[in-house]
Amino acid sequence: MPLHPGARGLADDAAQLDGLVLTSDTIVEGVHYRPADPPESVGWKLAAVNLSDLAAKGAAPAGCLLNHALTGDGGWDRAFLTGLGEALERYGMPLLGGDTVSLPAGAPRVMTLTAIGRAGPRVPERGGARAGDVLWVTGAIGGAGAGLAGAPAFLERYLRPLPRLAEGVALARQVHAMMDVSDGLLLDAARMAEASGLAATIALDAVPLPPGYSGTAEQAATAGDDYELLFALPPGVEPAVPATRIGGFAAGRGLTLSLHGAPRPLPASLGYTHGG
Amino acid sequence: MPLHPGARGLADDAAQLDGLVLTSDTIVEGVHYRPADPPESVGWKLAAVNLSDLAAKGAAPAGCLLNHALTGDGGWDRAFLTGLGEALERYGMPLLGGDTVSLPAGAPRVMTLTAIGRAGPRVPERGGARAGDVLWVTGAIGGAGAGLAGAPAFLERYLRPLPRLAEGVALARQVHAMMDVSDGLLLDAARMAEASGLAATIALDAVPLPPGYSGTAEQAATAGDDYELLFALPPGVEPAVPATRIGGFAAGRGLTLSLHGAPRPLPASLGYTHGG
Repeated sequence: MPLHPGARGLADDAAQLDGLVLTSDTIVEGVHYRPADPPESVGWKLAAVNLSDLAAKGAAPAGCLLNHALTGDGGWDRAFLTGLGEALERYGMPLLGGDTVSLPAGAPRVMTLTAIGRAGPRVPERGGARAGDVLWVTGAIGGAGAGLAGAPAFLERYLRPLPRLAEGVALARQVHAMMDVSDGLLLDAARMAEASGLAATIALDAVPLPPGYSGTAEQAATAGDDYELLFALPPGVEPAVPATRIGGFAAGRGLTLSLHGAPRPLPASLGYTHGG
Repeated sequence: MPLHPGARGLADDAAQLDGLVLTSDTIVEGVHYRPADPPESVGWKLAAVNLSDLAAKGAAPAGCLLNHALTGDGGWDRAFLTGLGEALERYGMPLLGGDTVSLPAGAPRVMTLTAIGRAGPRVPERGGARAGDVLWVTGAIGGAGAGLAGAPAFLERYLRPLPRLAEGVALARQVHAMMDVSDGLLLDAARMAEASGLAATIALDAVPLPPGYSGTAEQAATAGDDYELLFALPPGVEPAVPATRIGGFAAGRGLTLSLHGAPRPLPASLGYTHGG
């Protein structure tokens, strides 16, 4: 298979071509969302997860292509498109085209959005962290997981995540590495460390939890779907947008955790993998 | 839903952005290919149908994104990727990235390729034909349909179509309108006429049939999957690549047929719609 140099070995969440950043995410009914989730929220989420990949690259929305699968339920499809359109409108992302297919009766829905952004002066990589860098995260972690688990106050965070596009543009000029937190803070931090060829440490007590969150920091840090930005900055550099310092990078390999200064073992699962 | 001006109202097969041409096609098991088709040929075809859309725009391959759905059959997936890679290699199309998801057991496969090409000096539209233009088509029509219907000599034309990329680049400088023949010559010609606000006529006796083809011209002209280029040129202009003159455009609406100079009624179906 011929690989483009801009593919970055397929190890990153987005590729680059002629000053554009390209990313594509597919969602599958029953895998990435629950069949009973409101269709508006499924559409919103498909847009949001792709926009979040652009945010991690500091890219500005330029256009997108939708590959839509019809299953014969026109009401569902219209509501899905309404939610998708709301997210695209909110973040200034025009629809360029795509494809619509019909699925056989009973097949789970499979929808793809390909998002294209204009690159800024710098496009951060996942693997650019350096030893000594500080690890930061925007916003709060764990809300989407609590919503998925049934907490009504957090349901909206699970159903309608808010990608950090403006923050991504501002941070892209500063960071050594950046990615979005889609599958769990610990899992994504371990991926950043691995891609950077470094060891990462996270202080669980520093992980920012949303107001009213009743779980543990470990629960929050292993839940997914928050779509916050995780980034590495040199020591002494303050981020351009509000964020929380949660750990750092050093020579070595792997992820280690602490709680109030004492080592903590890694949980059995660092996050959520969608089986891909 | 915010539409980009480059989307051309979603009425075309490809969109434009910053000098790039973008197209995306999804194939569904049991809809766009037969479950028993060799997986190498399914991969080849997914690449070919997207490359054919770029050919119709006169664009040169720049990069692509694959959204791959796994169903637990590793051998099938490897063979699919082999065939896809062969087509991408042949046409110089590098893989930029994409996404891989797992489908629930028993779900039909749904795979998407998004192809990006560099635009040439002119990007033909489907709807640019003018009254008086001559309608031309490259290659021969009907072979893929005969292969799908079981003719062994034509099976390869159904399984491994050859998109007309070089021809597309050469023709893009000349044509008033161009599109690829994916769903049937009559259906696609009717779409070109409709998009151009004109009437089209086709002489069935002029439709180029492949050597050894035993069906009628009407059968050939209503079968799909040939991936030849259909285009409109002003009268008196010879196409830059080998092609056959099959009809023309005039003021009015709709498609009319003739056979050896006598009018022929339109068949009940002009081609194949994939239910989308």
